[in-house]
Amino acid sequence: MSKNKDNFVKEITKMEDDFAQWYTDIITKADLVDYSPVKGFMVIKSNGYALWESIQSFADQKFKETGHTNCYFPLLIPESLLDKEADHVEGFAPEVAWVTEAGGEELAERLAIRPTSETIICSMYKKWLRSYRDLPYLYNQWCSVVRWEKSTRPFLRTSEFLWQEGHTLHETKKEAEEETLQMLEIYRQVAEDLMAMPVVCGKKSEREKFAGAVDTYTMEALMHDGKALQAGTSHYLGQHFSTAFDITYQDRDGGLSHPHQTSWGISTRLIGGLIMVHSDNRGLVLPPKMATKQVRIIPIQQHKEGVMDKVNEIYAQLKKTLKVDIDDTDKTPGYKFNEAEMLGIPVRVEIGPRDIANNQAVLVRRDTFEKEQVSLDKLEDRLHELMDEIQKNLFDRAKARNEERTSTAHNMDEFKKALEEKPGFVRAMHCGDPDCELEIKDETSATLRCFPFDDNERIADTCINCGKKAAGLAYFAKAY
Amino acid sequence: MSKNKDNFVKEITKMEDDFAQWYTDIITKADLVDYSPVKGFMVIKSNGYALWESIQSFADQKFKETGHTNCYFPLLIPESLLDKEADHVEGFAPEVAWVTEAGGEELAERLAIRPTSETIICSMYKKWLRSYRDLPYLYNQWCSVVRWEKSTRPFLRTSEFLWQEGHTLHETKKEAEEETLQMLEIYRQVAEDLMAMPVVCGKKSEREKFAGAVDTYTMEALMHDGKALQAGTSHYLGQHFSTAFDITYQDRDGGLSHPHQTSWGISTRLIGGLIMVHSDNRGLVLPPKMATKQVRIIPIQQHKEGVMDKVNEIYAQLKKTLKVDIDDTDKTPGYKFNEAEMLGIPVRVEIGPRDIANNQAVLVRRDTFEKEQVSLDKLEDRLHELMDEIQKNLFDRAKARNEERTSTAHNMDEFKKALEEKPGFVRAMHCGDPDCELEIKDETSATLRCFPFDDNERIADTCINCGKKAAGLAYFAKAY
Repeated sequence: MSKNKDNFVKEITKMEDDFAQWYTDIITKADLVDYSPVKGFMVIKSNGYALWESIQSFADQKFKETGHTNCYFPLLIPESLLDKEADHVEGFAPEVAWVTEAGGEELAERLAIRPTSETIICSMYKKWLRSYRDLPYLYNQWCSVVRWEKSTRPFLRTSEFLWQEGHTLHETKKEAEEETLQMLEIYRQVAEDLMAMPVVCGKKSEREKFAGAVDTYTMEALMHDGKALQAGTSHYLGQHFSTAFDITYQDRDGGLSHPHQTSWGISTRLIGGLIMVHSDNRGLVLPPKMATKQVRIIPIQQHKEGVMDKVNEIYAQLKKTLKVDIDDTDKTPGYKFNEAEMLGIPVRVEIGPRDIANNQAVLVRRDTFEKEQVSLDKLEDRLHELMDEIQKNLFDRAKARNEERTSTAHNMDEFKKALEEKPGFVRAMHCGDPDCELEIKDETSATLRCFPFDDNERIADTCINCGKKAAGLAYFAKAY
Repeated sequence: MSKNKDNFVKEITKMEDDFAQWYTDIITKADLVDYSPVKGFMVIKSNGYALWESIQSFADQKFKETGHTNCYFPLLIPESLLDKEADHVEGFAPEVAWVTEAGGEELAERLAIRPTSETIICSMYKKWLRSYRDLPYLYNQWCSVVRWEKSTRPFLRTSEFLWQEGHTLHETKKEAEEETLQMLEIYRQVAEDLMAMPVVCGKKSEREKFAGAVDTYTMEALMHDGKALQAGTSHYLGQHFSTAFDITYQDRDGGLSHPHQTSWGISTRLIGGLIMVHSDNRGLVLPPKMATKQVRIIPIQQHKEGVMDKVNEIYAQLKKTLKVDIDDTDKTPGYKFNEAEMLGIPVRVEIGPRDIANNQAVLVRRDTFEKEQVSLDKLEDRLHELMDEIQKNLFDRAKARNEERTSTAHNMDEFKKALEEKPGFVRAMHCGDPDCELEIKDETSATLRCFPFDDNERIADTCINCGKKAAGLAYFAKAY
């Protein structure tokens, strides 16, 4: 939030030298986030929160267009509720933060800060639901959750994070499965259309699925360093929770049935992905659709007569259709260029006395650093074109990189070699057995990211590791 | 969320018979809120959350227009931080919920779930702030807070509630005071311009001010039962926190100074106020600017040929400029009318075969139940007029009621008589001494709501209770 000069003049670590330090430098120097006095908890600063607001606004509109509404369920969950679904509690109990004292007294029952809200929401759905006429239930909430983590990294893995969690009930398995996939498709749009971050969509393995789910679907993005990031998940919960919580409704035949359930979420983790997909050694790179500042005008020799008048005139025109600001501080132009680059502003516009005399401006793209001179008469149109070009270029170059970094392995030697020589996705057949999957993880540190929808080539009939019958083609990667 | 018929067909308690039960009936039957398994914690259902979204969207835009940006600070605050400002910890410690175990281990230091975030935010501001050039800091966050309450009522007083909290730093006392009043003015706009809820704005007494503040400003609304509701507060914190947390910056003279600070908040409590100001014995009443459904079309004899075609045609036209829906369920028209009234939809439009033959529709206002016939050619224009008329009427009638319920007292006998005979605000001179104020409370249950800005008539020179020199004219009331 503060604009301390030395935040910007110091070099940032090159990603080739130390990727983790590069990431830390970016998030700190672009003023996205800071470490708080509570270990593992982050402060999301204005610049970072604005990115979350972009995601929220885009996703919330899509949720509403598909018939969902927002609610708010309590932060605290009684231990007895959390315990009701066996797989679920086993998955989450180790990460729970417990409230044991409140209002000056010790509590009779421990209360969990929600790690996710299936259990508390199910307890309410049980109370509300009566008839098939009430279905579907299409509810979502935006909130924070707490999962105690031993080792954390801002945005990617923190003990508290912001997210949305959708929780729906349906009459039939078919409807619930359609909802699960519909929400994954909306997440894909958030990632690809808004954030310009290409993803691979598919189904999680038994080992990697959500604690309590029948099926988990995921979108997986590939970072600059070749590691995968699980960027959003959508779960078909079947009747596991509705049975455990005894949620029933009068069905069309007059009997009592358990509804079919889904849940789905995306979180501030997406911002970590955004950074590790697009940014470079000069700082943050933001797709124009995500940027709260799309254009920064930097006057050159701003104290010369007529410069600021012209700049203000141009600003007044541009701000009608673009998110634009002016840097008229007393810093040097070079310093201002660095700062605009560090903050990821998609285009900077340089205007000095000579430009004004020639009725032109100089535009510099953040994604490619390409410079061009543009007549002031065509400035606004050109900037709009550039917004589209940059948005598209960021997606295309990330997509090309992902393809370049996707290998195919027919045996474990090829698998290990691919991971070593070209970190990224490795395509390989797998049997689907959790123990076999764990063996691969123990041996290579790679995990099964998903069985992708759009790539089900049958490159062999047997599992790459155990040799048993293959369930399908899987994408493996080391992951965040 | 579920639309169970018997939620609506049962009569609701009349407010004259039992105001508290009337309130409970409204919030339950209009499906705004429900009680959760954790005592004192509420579930905000879709209909209730939509009201919060209206408030958020209106307020957030005003915050941004005045230069504020949003951030997110951690949910948990170490006990040692909470303890730093003496008045503050004394005010909040009794209501804190403590996390003592997390991630399977007992914590070395207890962590408070934030009851408000001054302390954690100050710890970050200390780290960030360096120079007067960085000021002002104009940050806000939207989040939930926990304050353990013994007796609770949905929206009005719950152990968890949603709110926004703004936290700003300024170079001078003057700037900070201006900010404090600017934010109170924005809150007044939220209350009066959006929610049609008239408020009295003024300064809190020493006894009622925020724990740690120099001055607290408030807006106070008057409910249907004559009780006051503190609907939003804005605090000038002076240098109390910046001194306690050792926040300093290099000032214009090259020395080190402590910044002047403000904080300000509105919460889901406003929704309780909205209900108790406008609603009636037939259900919720919503100002058109707050309503997610402004108009409901109810077809009459909908199975007759041509009715639904015409209704759908009208709907398609209206939805371009109004928030409109159609109730084409198989319930009876009378049932549908009741339901639309219970939900507070500002206008219902009835259209049947005879109306269609006459090229007209019947409009019924929710605020006055007035019916009118309108030519279909003028329907859209008339509905827009009605939105403005209803918004204005709700404000005007609440304002008139407030004025009617404001008494003046020159001595304690008049004071008690006013409270008894015409519950509402009592205008009386007060000395400002907290002990004297407490005496009045103990004797009458009324508290000093504020010294109002717009009413400082000097009706006497001495305090109504102790007879000492009066500090000013105060408004007293029993309060939520």
